[in-house]
Amino acid sequence: MRTRPLKVALLGCGVVGSEVARIMTTHADDLAARIGAPVELAGVAVRRPDKVREGIDPALITTDATALVKRGDIDVVVEVIGGIEPARTLITTAFEHGASVVSANKALLAQDGAALHAAAERSGRDLYYEAAVAGAIPLIRPLRESLAGDKVNRVLGIVNGTTNFILDKMDSTGAGYQEALDEATALGYAEADPTADVEGFDAAAKAAILAGIAFHTRVRLDDVHREGMTEVTASDFASAKQMGCTIKLLAICERAADGASVTARVHPAMIPLSHPLASVRGAYNAVFVESEAAGRLMFYGPGAGGSPTASAVLGDLVAVCRNRLDGATGPGESAYAALPVSPMGDVVTRYHISLDVADKPGVLAQVATVFAEHGVSIDTVRQQGKDQSSSRSGEAGTEGEASLVVVTHRATDAALGGTVEALRKLDTVRGVASIMRVEGE
Amino acid sequence: MRTRPLKVALLGCGVVGSEVARIMTTHADDLAARIGAPVELAGVAVRRPDKVREGIDPALITTDATALVKRGDIDVVVEVIGGIEPARTLITTAFEHGASVVSANKALLAQDGAALHAAAERSGRDLYYEAAVAGAIPLIRPLRESLAGDKVNRVLGIVNGTTNFILDKMDSTGAGYQEALDEATALGYAEADPTADVEGFDAAAKAAILAGIAFHTRVRLDDVHREGMTEVTASDFASAKQMGCTIKLLAICERAADGASVTARVHPAMIPLSHPLASVRGAYNAVFVESEAAGRLMFYGPGAGGSPTASAVLGDLVAVCRNRLDGATGPGESAYAALPVSPMGDVVTRYHISLDVADKPGVLAQVATVFAEHGVSIDTVRQQGKDQSSSRSGEAGTEGEASLVVVTHRATDAALGGTVEALRKLDTVRGVASIMRVEGE
Repeated sequence: MRTRPLKVALLGCGVVGSEVARIMTTHADDLAARIGAPVELAGVAVRRPDKVREGIDPALITTDATALVKRGDIDVVVEVIGGIEPARTLITTAFEHGASVVSANKALLAQDGAALHAAAERSGRDLYYEAAVAGAIPLIRPLRESLAGDKVNRVLGIVNGTTNFILDKMDSTGAGYQEALDEATALGYAEADPTADVEGFDAAAKAAILAGIAFHTRVRLDDVHREGMTEVTASDFASAKQMGCTIKLLAICERAADGASVTARVHPAMIPLSHPLASVRGAYNAVFVESEAAGRLMFYGPGAGGSPTASAVLGDLVAVCRNRLDGATGPGESAYAALPVSPMGDVVTRYHISLDVADKPGVLAQVATVFAEHGVSIDTVRQQGKDQSSSRSGEAGTEGEASLVVVTHRATDAALGGTVEALRKLDTVRGVASIMRVEGE
Repeated sequence: MRTRPLKVALLGCGVVGSEVARIMTTHADDLAARIGAPVELAGVAVRRPDKVREGIDPALITTDATALVKRGDIDVVVEVIGGIEPARTLITTAFEHGASVVSANKALLAQDGAALHAAAERSGRDLYYEAAVAGAIPLIRPLRESLAGDKVNRVLGIVNGTTNFILDKMDSTGAGYQEALDEATALGYAEADPTADVEGFDAAAKAAILAGIAFHTRVRLDDVHREGMTEVTASDFASAKQMGCTIKLLAICERAADGASVTARVHPAMIPLSHPLASVRGAYNAVFVESEAAGRLMFYGPGAGGSPTASAVLGDLVAVCRNRLDGATGPGESAYAALPVSPMGDVVTRYHISLDVADKPGVLAQVATVFAEHGVSIDTVRQQGKDQSSSRSGEAGTEGEASLVVVTHRATDAALGGTVEALRKLDTVRGVASIMRVEGE
């Protein structure tokens, strides 16, 4: 074993960074044995140098991250600051000064992955970021390496623990969104400003990264269709139950049926209770991968938290250090397929639509005609009076309010959008109570 | 991209091999883009040269596997013959002649992994074998690389699809073992001679491989305690249901509580229905990994079959070819921890014991005394008369037959074994109907 240590600069020392530093110290012998050389923490860049950081030599602490990555003797920079700047500039500078980089920065990777990969390649260094998607769950490496001889057709993932906690709570207790969010906040699963989670921004960044790797195609955050889950109601869960489904916020990356394009999207969706993702509870994450040869795979585990994220960072650190010793690099960006990313309108799926309608003869015929005119085929229709007594006669009901639940066969999002627009114009349709996609069948 | 192709020799062209060859042809462009050079099938060694093999150039077929691996121009040998010989000699010869090796051979790896790794290292080549454990499920790579910075404490896996199909059938239909086996055979999930599966030999080989990688310690097939699942009865499933459990054949690799030793074992066990492994249905496989930092991870997918296994082989092929181009090697054997492998008697777990006893006063007291004398603490006891009407009075029942179900707290297998031996000697104990370990709590 080499005795001269590899030098690691840590950018950021919050929940994840402090855990990375702790494990580097407590498990130093294991890491050295697995890498083939000791690793040494050579510097830790922080914003608040006065904070007490147990187990970290105060002499290593600096507020000058730029000087740290420019030192020239750093072998690996671990970036756990998050956000676009200064992380982007620091990573680029690190490559220019000969370091490899391990990052947990999903927002940056989703926005500028291609440029960062190019910078890594120019300098002959590695850029690894297993921790950027679904915390500790090995996902980037299996997609990029284990499935390198296969053709991935779909990635369907629960990649945000906060929203899964909220939706699971709504499902299991019948709570409304706000009540479930309040509990998530109280328990520390949701941040004071939960926007990034509940509006799907966090999941969209992960979808972009996953789609890029799965389809060997550049997919940017802007390419990902995003809908949050703040409008999911207890009533939607009741509808889902009637369908034998639950509701999850899903990141969905799909290859089109003809193989010539891909899509990436994040939105709440119904999935059957029999689907493995349906039983992913609490703040856990799971990603379901469908590929041509391997079939259906699922990866499950904690999607966030200091220790799990540190585990992913350290797995990358070992790989990157091994590569340094070998004078080699791991797989870089693979974007050779360069498939076009289609807009949401091209996505094909099924829909569950709840309409508030006038409870009078002819309404169902009118509604069905609108679906037919837009080429959206109806699978099932269920009508019931607003007083909850089922109005089975349907066409012969008395005037009043009724609800009409339509579940469609597969149709494009554009066709469904046109259908809904036309439905809203019908006198007999008082309102569109909800539209929910049905996935995972 | 390099234009001179990397040459691949395929040993074996059965269900897996023919699928490897097919994908190498149909996805040649993708593989070339991902590797950075084209790969060429340079020869295919088979036993029956006259069999028609669609899509394979007959000029590539040979019965002389030894000559093929000795050619000297082969970059990678893919071994999908299985069994110990001639696979072992062919792999060793391949290394001697400068090839890297991708193998799907669990039996060989479990028996001679250390020697094969040493041969690979001597020649500066790679030995990869993702396909040897749980088919398409990425498992070796995540354990070896993604968790390289973490400390794995336990691996709990359903790694044999045949037995999971049988047990799932027994659980869902109430069928007995023979009936469920017959159905598995009729559907092609079980071989004509199912011994390797139902007696746990297949799972034990996988347990040895997983334990070795997880604990950085050499674990051989002989180190794995093995019990088959042929004696699991419908009555055991009824008992499991009463416990809120189901029964799975599990491969369990554990680090002892003091961290100083490890164990590996395969046996049927009860696991709670709330455990993610409980909902793994049919012939699917899943492996649950508990590690210090990452927490609880699960990997799920098809554990066998031509296409899934080929997917794993091809993922390894891409990695090994990339390493060849880089002049590097991937991670080899990691056995530096060299922890002792403890015998089964040292394993600590809980037990569910069904006894047939005389239905008369004092029996429970006698039985409880035996447990206490052997230091096995009882969690719950349930008594019922053999006529199925619950004899709640217990100690006051009339003489006849009763059954006594004892669930223990955690105890060593040795202590439990001593307890059972002593129970058998009691006049009032007519028989020990079943002993089942309870895992995953």
